[in-house]
Amino acid sequence: MTDLSPLSELISPPFATRHIGPADADQTRMLEAVGFASTADLVAVTVPEAIRAKDRLRLPPAASETEALAELRALAARNSVLTSMIGLGYHDTITPGVIRRNLLENPGWYTAYTPYQPEISQGRLEALINFQTVVSDLTALDVAGASLLDEATAAAEAMTLARRAGRAKSDVFVVDADALPQTKAVLRTRAEPLGIELVESDFTAELPECFGVLVQYPGASGRVRDFRSIADAAHARGAQVVAAADLLALTLLAAPGEFGADIAIGSSQRFGVPLGFGGPHAAYMAVRDGLQRQMPGRLVGVSQDADLRPAYRLALQTREQHIRREKATSNICTAQVLLAVIAGMYAVYHGPEGLRRIGRRIHRHAVVLAEGLRHGGVEVVHDTFFDTVLARVPGRAAEVVAAARDNGVNLRLVDADHVGVTCDEKTELLHLEQVLAAFEVSGAVLTDLDAAAHDALPAALARVSDYLTHPVFHSHRSETSMLRYLRRLQDKDIALDRSMIPLGSCTMKLNATTEMEPITWPEFAGLHPYAPEEQAAGYLELIKELEGWLAEVTGYDAVSIQPNAGSQGEFAGLLAIRAYHKARGESGRDVCLIPSSAHGTNAASAVMAGMRVAVVACDDEGNVDLDDLNAKIDKHRGQLAAIMVTYPSTHGVYEETITQICERVHEAGGQVYVDGANLNALVGLAKPGEFGADVSHLNLHKTFCIPHGGGGPGVGPVAVRAHLADYLPGHPLREGSAVGPVSAAPYGSAGILPISWAYIRMMGTEGLTAATEQAILSANYLARRLAPHYPVLYTGRGGLVAHECIVDLRQITKETGVTVDDVAKRLVDYGFHAPTMSFPVAGTLMIEPTESEDLAELDRFCDAMIAIRGEIGKVASGAYDRVDNPLRNAPHTADCLVADEWAHPYTRTEAAYPLPSVREGKYWSPVRRIDQAYGDRNLVCSCPPLEAYED
Amino acid sequence: MTDLSPLSELISPPFATRHIGPADADQTRMLEAVGFASTADLVAVTVPEAIRAKDRLRLPPAASETEALAELRALAARNSVLTSMIGLGYHDTITPGVIRRNLLENPGWYTAYTPYQPEISQGRLEALINFQTVVSDLTALDVAGASLLDEATAAAEAMTLARRAGRAKSDVFVVDADALPQTKAVLRTRAEPLGIELVESDFTAELPECFGVLVQYPGASGRVRDFRSIADAAHARGAQVVAAADLLALTLLAAPGEFGADIAIGSSQRFGVPLGFGGPHAAYMAVRDGLQRQMPGRLVGVSQDADLRPAYRLALQTREQHIRREKATSNICTAQVLLAVIAGMYAVYHGPEGLRRIGRRIHRHAVVLAEGLRHGGVEVVHDTFFDTVLARVPGRAAEVVAAARDNGVNLRLVDADHVGVTCDEKTELLHLEQVLAAFEVSGAVLTDLDAAAHDALPAALARVSDYLTHPVFHSHRSETSMLRYLRRLQDKDIALDRSMIPLGSCTMKLNATTEMEPITWPEFAGLHPYAPEEQAAGYLELIKELEGWLAEVTGYDAVSIQPNAGSQGEFAGLLAIRAYHKARGESGRDVCLIPSSAHGTNAASAVMAGMRVAVVACDDEGNVDLDDLNAKIDKHRGQLAAIMVTYPSTHGVYEETITQICERVHEAGGQVYVDGANLNALVGLAKPGEFGADVSHLNLHKTFCIPHGGGGPGVGPVAVRAHLADYLPGHPLREGSAVGPVSAAPYGSAGILPISWAYIRMMGTEGLTAATEQAILSANYLARRLAPHYPVLYTGRGGLVAHECIVDLRQITKETGVTVDDVAKRLVDYGFHAPTMSFPVAGTLMIEPTESEDLAELDRFCDAMIAIRGEIGKVASGAYDRVDNPLRNAPHTADCLVADEWAHPYTRTEAAYPLPSVREGKYWSPVRRIDQAYGDRNLVCSCPPLEAYED
Repeated sequence: MTDLSPLSELISPPFATRHIGPADADQTRMLEAVGFASTADLVAVTVPEAIRAKDRLRLPPAASETEALAELRALAARNSVLTSMIGLGYHDTITPGVIRRNLLENPGWYTAYTPYQPEISQGRLEALINFQTVVSDLTALDVAGASLLDEATAAAEAMTLARRAGRAKSDVFVVDADALPQTKAVLRTRAEPLGIELVESDFTAELPECFGVLVQYPGASGRVRDFRSIADAAHARGAQVVAAADLLALTLLAAPGEFGADIAIGSSQRFGVPLGFGGPHAAYMAVRDGLQRQMPGRLVGVSQDADLRPAYRLALQTREQHIRREKATSNICTAQVLLAVIAGMYAVYHGPEGLRRIGRRIHRHAVVLAEGLRHGGVEVVHDTFFDTVLARVPGRAAEVVAAARDNGVNLRLVDADHVGVTCDEKTELLHLEQVLAAFEVSGAVLTDLDAAAHDALPAALARVSDYLTHPVFHSHRSETSMLRYLRRLQDKDIALDRSMIPLGSCTMKLNATTEMEPITWPEFAGLHPYAPEEQAAGYLELIKELEGWLAEVTGYDAVSIQPNAGSQGEFAGLLAIRAYHKARGESGRDVCLIPSSAHGTNAASAVMAGMRVAVVACDDEGNVDLDDLNAKIDKHRGQLAAIMVTYPSTHGVYEETITQICERVHEAGGQVYVDGANLNALVGLAKPGEFGADVSHLNLHKTFCIPHGGGGPGVGPVAVRAHLADYLPGHPLREGSAVGPVSAAPYGSAGILPISWAYIRMMGTEGLTAATEQAILSANYLARRLAPHYPVLYTGRGGLVAHECIVDLRQITKETGVTVDDVAKRLVDYGFHAPTMSFPVAGTLMIEPTESEDLAELDRFCDAMIAIRGEIGKVASGAYDRVDNPLRNAPHTADCLVADEWAHPYTRTEAAYPLPSVREGKYWSPVRRIDQAYGDRNLVCSCPPLEAYED
Repeated sequence: MTDLSPLSELISPPFATRHIGPADADQTRMLEAVGFASTADLVAVTVPEAIRAKDRLRLPPAASETEALAELRALAARNSVLTSMIGLGYHDTITPGVIRRNLLENPGWYTAYTPYQPEISQGRLEALINFQTVVSDLTALDVAGASLLDEATAAAEAMTLARRAGRAKSDVFVVDADALPQTKAVLRTRAEPLGIELVESDFTAELPECFGVLVQYPGASGRVRDFRSIADAAHARGAQVVAAADLLALTLLAAPGEFGADIAIGSSQRFGVPLGFGGPHAAYMAVRDGLQRQMPGRLVGVSQDADLRPAYRLALQTREQHIRREKATSNICTAQVLLAVIAGMYAVYHGPEGLRRIGRRIHRHAVVLAEGLRHGGVEVVHDTFFDTVLARVPGRAAEVVAAARDNGVNLRLVDADHVGVTCDEKTELLHLEQVLAAFEVSGAVLTDLDAAAHDALPAALARVSDYLTHPVFHSHRSETSMLRYLRRLQDKDIALDRSMIPLGSCTMKLNATTEMEPITWPEFAGLHPYAPEEQAAGYLELIKELEGWLAEVTGYDAVSIQPNAGSQGEFAGLLAIRAYHKARGESGRDVCLIPSSAHGTNAASAVMAGMRVAVVACDDEGNVDLDDLNAKIDKHRGQLAAIMVTYPSTHGVYEETITQICERVHEAGGQVYVDGANLNALVGLAKPGEFGADVSHLNLHKTFCIPHGGGGPGVGPVAVRAHLADYLPGHPLREGSAVGPVSAAPYGSAGILPISWAYIRMMGTEGLTAATEQAILSANYLARRLAPHYPVLYTGRGGLVAHECIVDLRQITKETGVTVDDVAKRLVDYGFHAPTMSFPVAGTLMIEPTESEDLAELDRFCDAMIAIRGEIGKVASGAYDRVDNPLRNAPHTADCLVADEWAHPYTRTEAAYPLPSVREGKYWSPVRRIDQAYGDRNLVCSCPPLEAYED
C-alpha cells in the first residue's frame, strides 16, 4: 500500500453529519426531486436576495464531540460547587438516581413534545397529573396547573389572575415585605406596564384597598407567619389572596387553602430538581374552585376516549394565547414539563411519609442551628421558622459569610447586620458545625441541642390534613418498581426516539447526547443562582460566549439569555422598545402593529408590555398587506411603538417585502420586532439584525437544540441592536437597571445553556448553515412528494416553501368529511406524531421535517401521508363508509384490534398495518380518540381513583 | 407543634429499603402467609444452625446513596487519566454519546439476561448478530461467536480448540514471540494443566511439529508480518493457525481468513468500549467452516418462528458446559454481550467507510510519529506497522517514558533500550509533539512529514476484500437514526425495567442507578490496565476495599477479583488447590469429586485444571449421598484433590450435611471447593470460609449487583483460606507468582467493580443480611402461593426452600402434554420472562424471586402462574384442544392476534389478555415460538439479507 492519503484527508466527519439526517448521496437525490443542481441554487431561489447575509458567520471552527465535551469539562471545572445554604427559593435537593437516569437523562422523556396530541402523550400526561395532585394536595386548593416558568413569574401571573378574577376596583397589589427579592423585582417589571401599583407591606398596619395580596409562606427571612387575619381582611376588600408557599414546608404547615388563600404559587425545585444555577425548575400554581378557567398555563385533565375509558389531555385550552390573542389570560405558551415530571416523581418515590420526614429533618437541622447560634450568644431574629434561620450579627455579616465560604458553605448576606442560613435535604450536622464556626460559635454539642430543642413551627399552623393519599404515591418505594413505572409511562408516548415529529413551527430537531450530557454534571447542576460570581466562572464564560455567538448568528449587538421561554423573551423585547421610546421622551408610543397571521402570543405579550394592538391585514398568501400596513402606520403614526412580524412568516414563506416593512415602520418612528420562532430557517443565510429588525427573541429549544421536554423547559433569549442594549432585562437582586428582570434567576434557565453552547460549538459556521439549507431542502422535498396528493399552501418564489410546508385539507374535508383531526389521529396508527394542526390556517396541517430527519424517515412519513390520502379516496369513492372508517376511528388500540368482536366494515389488518413497514416496531396507542369537550365539561385535574380504570 | 422528634428519629431510610422490594408491611403479610412471626424465626428454621455465622458482618456502616457517590467521586479523583499510548491490546476509543447514553447507561439493555429465551431477546440477538457479522467480515472467516471474555483467554480457548480440531498428534502449541505478553502469560496458565507444551518462536527457524500456531497480527511490537508461509507450514503439519488480530487493523490489512488462519481471536475493545482499567471488553473468535461446532462460547444464529418468519436465537447450545459437563468444549458460560453490542453498534454507526477512515487516520499518525523520530535521529525498529512504533533508545527508555509521562502521555517501556508508542482514535498531532519532545526530538514539522511520508503497511497485505456490506452498516449515520435503532431493538426485549425475571440460580436483582453511574465517569472509564500504579490510586484503593469486604462476607482470608467470569474464578480456585497440593509434594492428587446435581461448569473447569472428575451420587432430594461420598473418598483417597459442592445446593436447599462433607474430604487430604453461585442465600447468615470450605468463587453479577448485560459482563472473584492465598492468580505482566494469571488484565473487569463496591457500601451489614433474609422469605412466599397449583420440589426442613423454588411439571406434562416450554412461552404472553427451565431437573421450572421484587410484582407473577395452571386444567378437561391451545401456541404476537383470520378454538382475548392486569403496558413478543432445531440444521450466524424479512 503506497497510498499517501495524508491526515488532512482523514479528518473525522464533523458533528454536523450526525446532526443532519440525509447523507450526501441522499441530499443529491432530494435535490433532484426538487429540481435543483445544488443546495446553493435552491437557497438562491428560495431566500430573497435582499435579506441574504453579506458575510459568512464568524464563529470558532466546529469542534468535534470529543473536543466540545473536553471544553465543557474545562468550563465545568471552573465552577466551584460549595454547600449552598443561601435559600431564597432555591434549595439543594437529592435527585434520586433512578429518576435522573431514566427520566432526566432519557430521550424517551426529554425529546417529547408538548402533549397537544393526547393519545400519544398519556405517559407524560399521567406524570403531570401526579404533579398537579401533589400541588393541589399540599396547597389544599382545588385545581393545580401543570407548571409555570419560575416562582417569580408565577407570582406575576397570580397578580394578573387576581386582577382579572376579583371584584375589587383598586389597582393596588400588596406584596409581603418578606417576599423573595426576585419575586418583588419581577412583580415590579410586570406591574408597571399594566398600571398596577405595588405596595409593600409587613402587615403591621391595616391592609389598604387592593385587588390582591401576596404573602410569602414561610418568608424570605425564614419567618413563618399566620396569615389568616390578613386573608380575611383581603377578602373583606374583595381582594384575592396569593400565597407564595414552599411545597416542602407544606408537609408540616397548614396549607394555603386552609388559611384562606385563593391562589398558591411557588417552586417545586426542591422536589428533586437540580439547582442548575437558577433553572429550569417548575413553578406551580393552584387555585380555589372558581378560578380554574382563568388560570394561566397548561392544565391536564381527565376525559374519556372513544371506548369510554379514562384518558388524560390538556384541558381548557381556550384560555390560551394561541386562541385568545390579546384577550388571553397570559402570554405563557409552555410549561416546565420535564421538571414538573421530576418533581411529581420525587413525590411518587418518597410518598407523603417520606416527604414529611425530609421536611421534618430539614426543620430539625434549622432548629439545632438556631439553638447553636443562641448557645454562642448570636441573636436569632425569628422564633418561628421552617428551614431558614436569620441571625443578627451587627456589623459582622459580611465577615461571617466570608468565613463560612472559607469553610465551604455559602450563606445569604442579607445586609450588614444579618445573615440568613437555610437548611435543605442535603444538610448534615457537619454543615451546621461549619456554619457555627463561621459565626465563631464553639463548644455547642449539636446532638445535645437537638435532644433538648423544641420545634420552631407555630402550633396553630400545624398541618393536620392528609395529602398524597392516592395509591400512586404509595406504590413505588423500591427502585425496581419506580424504574418500571417510568418505563411504562415512557412507553405510552411518541417522542423523537421513536419517529419523526413533523411539527410545523416547532422544530423537533435532534437533541444530541453530547449536548445533553453536561447538564447533569454536578459542576453545572449543583450551583445556586446567587452563588458568588467567582464560584461560577465557568458558567459566566459559557454564557458570555453563547450570548456572543447568538448575537453573531442574528446580527444583533447584544443578547440576554435571561428569559426562560420564548414568551418571556418576547415580553422582554417589547419592554426594551417601550423603555427606549420612554427614554427618548416618547412614552406615548404604545401601539403595536401585529399582522393577522401572527402567532397569538405576540398580541398577548404586547398587552402585557402595556401596548395596544392594531391588527394589520394579510393577503391570501399570509403575507403582510402593504397597503393596510401603510394605512395603519398613518393612522397610528404618533403612537406607533412597534411592529411584530415573524420571519419567515408563520405560513413558512420568506416574504419578499420584509425590508420594505422594516423601512416604513422605522420611518414612522416605530421599532421592528422580528419574532425569532422561525430563526432556524435563517441561521447562516440571513440575519434579522442586518435586514432591518431592532429586536428579536430566539427559541433555544427550537433552533438551538434544547429538547422540548414534553412541554418545557425552553429558553427565549432576547437579542437587540445597540440602541436597545441598555434596556435588556436587569438582574433580579440588583437595582438600577432601566428595565427590571423578567425571570427569577439572573441567567434564567442557565442549567440547560450548555446544550445550545455545545450545538453551536460543534456545528460551527458550515454546520449551522448546512442545517438551515437542509431544513429548506427537506421541506421542499416533502412538499414535492405530497403535492400530487394534497394541495400545498403558501409557496413562495418558484413554488418553493421555506423550512416547513402547509398541506390543505379544507377541500378534502368538504368533499369527504375527513378532517384534519382524522388525518392526525390516523397518523398515530402509522406510528407518527401528527404535524401541527390548523395553525396558522384552520383545516390545514403544517409539516416541518427539520434537517435532522434522514431520507428514509422522510419517505416513511410521505408514504404514510400518501397512504392516508388513498384511504380518504376510499371514503370519497364510497369504498369506505363515511363514518365507520379507519380514519374516523383512529387511533386504533391493541385492545380494540384484538377484541373478539370486530364490527367495522374494514379489516383489522387495514386498521393496524396499513403499510407493511408499520409492522416493524409498531407503536400502539394506549387509548382511542379522546373526547376533548367531555373533559372540559367534567373537569378533573388530579389523579382519578383506580376504580376509574376498571372495565 | 411541640413535637420533639430529634434528628436521630428522622434518618433517611437506608438504600436497602430501595433495593429490597417488599416494604415492612408487606414483609409482615408475607411472613403470615408462610406461617412465621418474624424473619428471624423463618431463617432459624431454614438455615441449618451448624453453618450459621457466629458474628454479624464487620463492614462499614451503610452509606446513603449520596454518601456513596461522594466517596466514589473522591476515589475517582485519585485516578489520573493521562493520554494512553501504551497499546498492548488496549486502545483509547471514542464511545459515541448516543451509544453510551442509550445502551451502556440504559437499563433496558444492561439489565437484560442471557438470551436463552429467544422470543423476548430479539433485540439483543440482532445486536449480537451485527457483532458476529463485523467479526466474520473483518476476519474473512465463516463463523464468528457472540464474544469471549478477553483476548488472552480467547487465545487460550483457540489453543484448546486447535487441539480438539486438529489431526496433529503433537502436544506443542507454538506462540509468536511477538504475541501480547498477557496472552503468553494466560496461555502458560492454561496450557500447563492440560499437558500442552508452549514453544515461543519468532518464526526465523523452521516450524516444529505442533497442533497449532498462534500469530499476532500486528505484533505487540507493532510489526506487521506476512504469515502466509507460516500458515502453509502449519497446515502441512496438520496444525491449526490461530491469528490474534486487531479488528481495526483489519480494515486496512488482509484478513486472517485470507492468509490461511483457521481461527481468529482478538479484542473488540477499540470499537467504542471504554478502557475501564482493563475491562470488561468483548473478545472475539471467528473460525473457518468446519470448526463452528467445536467453538467455545455463545453463537447467535438465525432460525424461524412458528409463522416461518426469521428469528434469532442461540445456536448449537449442545456444545456448552451446562450440557456436556467435562466433555464440554470449554467452561465458558457467559459472554461479554453488553460490550459486544457496543462494539457492533460502533460499526453500525461508523460503517465500513468510517472504520476504514479511523484506521487510516491512526495509521497516518503512527507514520508521522515514525518520521518524526527518524528526523530526530531516533531509530525506528520496524518498517511495517499499523498503529505502534517501536523506538530504540539504548539505555534511555525509562527516561523517555518518564519524560512523556511528565508531558501527560503514557508510553510502553518495553525494556531498557526500547519504547513502544501506540496511536489510537483519540491521537492528535498534539500528542505526537508531546511524545517527540519526550524523545528530545525537536524541529520536526509534522504536517510536512505527513505530506511526504508513505504508509508503513506492507503492500502485499493491503486489504482488498469488502466488509460490512450489509445494509445495517449503511443505514444509521445520523444520531437520530441510531437512537431509534437502539430504541427499536430495546423495545423487543424483556429486561428488568419491564418485569420480574424470576430465573432460578441467576439472581436478577436490582442493578441500582447509583451503583451504575460511576462506571462511565471518565476517571473510571478512561484508565489503561497497564497505566502506572500511582495513576490508579483510586482504583487500587477501591479494589483493596472490595476484596476485603468480600473476604469478610465469605469468611475467607484472601480474595482476587481478577477472574472476569464465574467460570474463570472456578478455574482459578481449582488452580490454587492444584498448586497447593503440588507445593506439598502431592502432585498426584488430581481427582475432583463432583455431585451429580452440580452445574456442568464445575466438571468442565476441573478438566481445564488438569483434574479427573469422579461423580458422587445424590439422593432424590438432590443432596449429596453421604454413603457414596464415603465410597468415592475411599476409592480415590491418595489422589483426592478436591470436592466441588454448591451451597445452598443447585436444588435451592440448605443441605444439613455440608459440614460433614467438608470434614470427610479434609480428613482424606482433599480441599473443599464451595461454588458461590448461590452465595446470595448466605450473605450475612453463613460464611463458606467458616463452615468448612477452603475456596469459593463468587458471582459479582449475581450476588453483588453487576447487571447481566444481556449475557455478560460478569466478575467471578476467587476467595480462599490463608493456606491457599499464595496460589491466587498472578499479574499478567509480572513473572514469579506460583500460579499464572487467568485474565488478560491484572484486575480483570476492573471497570465495573465500582458497582459491587457501591452495593456493599450502601447496604452495610444490616442491609446485606436483610436482603438475604428477604430473598428466602420471598422464595418461600412464592412456594406457598404456588404449592396448591404445582408440586414444589426439594423443600428442606419445615417444608421450606432457600432462596429459590422448583415447581415440577413432569406429572402435568405426562397427563396433559403441556410442557415446561409451553408454560415458559405462555408466560411471555403474560409479560414475564420465564423461570429457569429444566435445571437442575428436567421437566421443572426453577423460580428465584430475589429480594428486589416487591409484593405486588410477586403476586402478579403468581397470578400468572396460577392462571396458566387453570389453562392447563382446561387442556386436561378437554375444554382446550390438546394441540391448538394458548399454551402450545404461545407466545402470541400482535401480528397473529390482529390477523383478519383467527382459526384457533380459543379467543383472541384469551390469547392476548388472559388476565386484566396484562392490558396495562402489555409486552408484545416480536416473534412467535422459535424452531431451535431448524436453526441448528441450517446454521446462519451473520446478518440475514433484508429480503428474508419480506412477507
